[in-house]
Amino acid sequence: MKTITTLSDLRAARQLLHGSVGLVPTMGYLHEGHLSLIRRAKMECESVVVSIFVNPSQFGANEDLSKYPRDLKRDLNLMEPLGVDLVWNPTAEIVYPAGYQTWVEVESLTRPLEGAIRPAHFRGVTTIVTKLFNAVQPHKAYFGQKDAQQAAVIQQMIRDLNFPIEMEICPTTREADGLAMSSRNQYLQGADRPAAAILFKALSAAKSAYAGGERNAKNLRNIVQETLATEPRVQVQYVSCADYHTLSELDTVRGKSLLSLAVMVGKTRLIDNVTLE
Amino acid sequence: MKTITTLSDLRAARQLLHGSVGLVPTMGYLHEGHLSLIRRAKMECESVVVSIFVNPSQFGANEDLSKYPRDLKRDLNLMEPLGVDLVWNPTAEIVYPAGYQTWVEVESLTRPLEGAIRPAHFRGVTTIVTKLFNAVQPHKAYFGQKDAQQAAVIQQMIRDLNFPIEMEICPTTREADGLAMSSRNQYLQGADRPAAAILFKALSAAKSAYAGGERNAKNLRNIVQETLATEPRVQVQYVSCADYHTLSELDTVRGKSLLSLAVMVGKTRLIDNVTLE
Repeated sequence: MKTITTLSDLRAARQLLHGSVGLVPTMGYLHEGHLSLIRRAKMECESVVVSIFVNPSQFGANEDLSKYPRDLKRDLNLMEPLGVDLVWNPTAEIVYPAGYQTWVEVESLTRPLEGAIRPAHFRGVTTIVTKLFNAVQPHKAYFGQKDAQQAAVIQQMIRDLNFPIEMEICPTTREADGLAMSSRNQYLQGADRPAAAILFKALSAAKSAYAGGERNAKNLRNIVQETLATEPRVQVQYVSCADYHTLSELDTVRGKSLLSLAVMVGKTRLIDNVTLE
Repeated sequence: MKTITTLSDLRAARQLLHGSVGLVPTMGYLHEGHLSLIRRAKMECESVVVSIFVNPSQFGANEDLSKYPRDLKRDLNLMEPLGVDLVWNPTAEIVYPAGYQTWVEVESLTRPLEGAIRPAHFRGVTTIVTKLFNAVQPHKAYFGQKDAQQAAVIQQMIRDLNFPIEMEICPTTREADGLAMSSRNQYLQGADRPAAAILFKALSAAKSAYAGGERNAKNLRNIVQETLATEPRVQVQYVSCADYHTLSELDTVRGKSLLSLAVMVGKTRLIDNVTLE
């Protein structure tokens, strides 16, 4: 496993990789969710590249860029046994040098949900992912279903911009109590951590109702809302029941759909989702 | 020489090309300027791909998209003797299918000059060039110096987005009277055609003054303006003397600079430029 900083070193090392290359883009502080993406990439590709970069352009001015957890040594130790070939860990100056001025934007898919609350977020995501794609030139790229809108946006970008890359969206990895793994779970203090289990309970309650035949999207959202309301530490930002591909809110669930939410648990912002199909 | 329409056929044909690949992106209706790019690509690369696509997204609502000259058969005949390997001639539906929503934007370099007069133009250019780069995956891409701002913008985009592509900017090809070759020269009717020779005369007069020691940018712009003013068929849109790399207007010429202009000759919009170095 080779750790690389500069773009020219990355290009040189990339040239030496044989066969199909899988990319797992991360912001570091790896958890079991990231490791599951890396294991899947390792199974499907001859070589695996992991990028670790806390991308400033996807954080809003009042968000958690400066306190986002970072621990490269810990990350490298976690990856070492998995057979990762290259780790690219560039500096912000390498990724966004003086005079940087190019942005990739996906339009309608980035407007609702996360995009409505975090206006410049997806522009930062699609730009850094384009840069990673061009730098690493992978055959496949691995993303988590936990960031469902991100996955939909990147899939749209790949299609629209003709990237010759296959995207794999991997299942959300959860703690024993159902909490979706996230580097931001580190922020949960004291009683906020057990309280956060309510997110998956709420989504699961609605999914059970769906399995029992409920197709009214408003009723499904209400089940999520009412379950969340039983936990006073939780403040809801949105609960959505939307078409899986367009992310448009539904009246009636038909075909593959996405039930998603964003909440504050104390001072920590969390998102989660399940699919209905 | 193989002519291809769909993206999947292009990808399949691209796989079969050996060694280095040069891309010459065009909007068709080829002239000697395009052919010079193709010859240069052929000299420098083992395989040459030419794209022919009149890109709707780089035309403004009141511009000449519908009347832009098109003649594929003529273009293919001109390319046949040059050893072009692949010609990609997609439809607008292939390039921008229903639901298309992704755009690439370069910021400060697209604001002055052409960008000030044609607000969405460069967004269309950088988006189609990104799509062409991803579809063709060339090692080198060839553009004309005649579209100097376009060249600067694409060079910035290549650098910012980490495209592993070398850009070659090739000299402007001119008619006997100095008029820069352009597919839009077809529009020049009657006395407009000889009148259009004043553009290069004006730029050359300023370039001579520069060679004679003139370094005041305002004086150089004035020489261009005054020469253009001798031709009543010409209406000036802008005359610029700017830094070659940043396109910022100069007070004093130091280092490589760009002297550029846009005018209407009758109803035809023309641009031209020379470098000062």
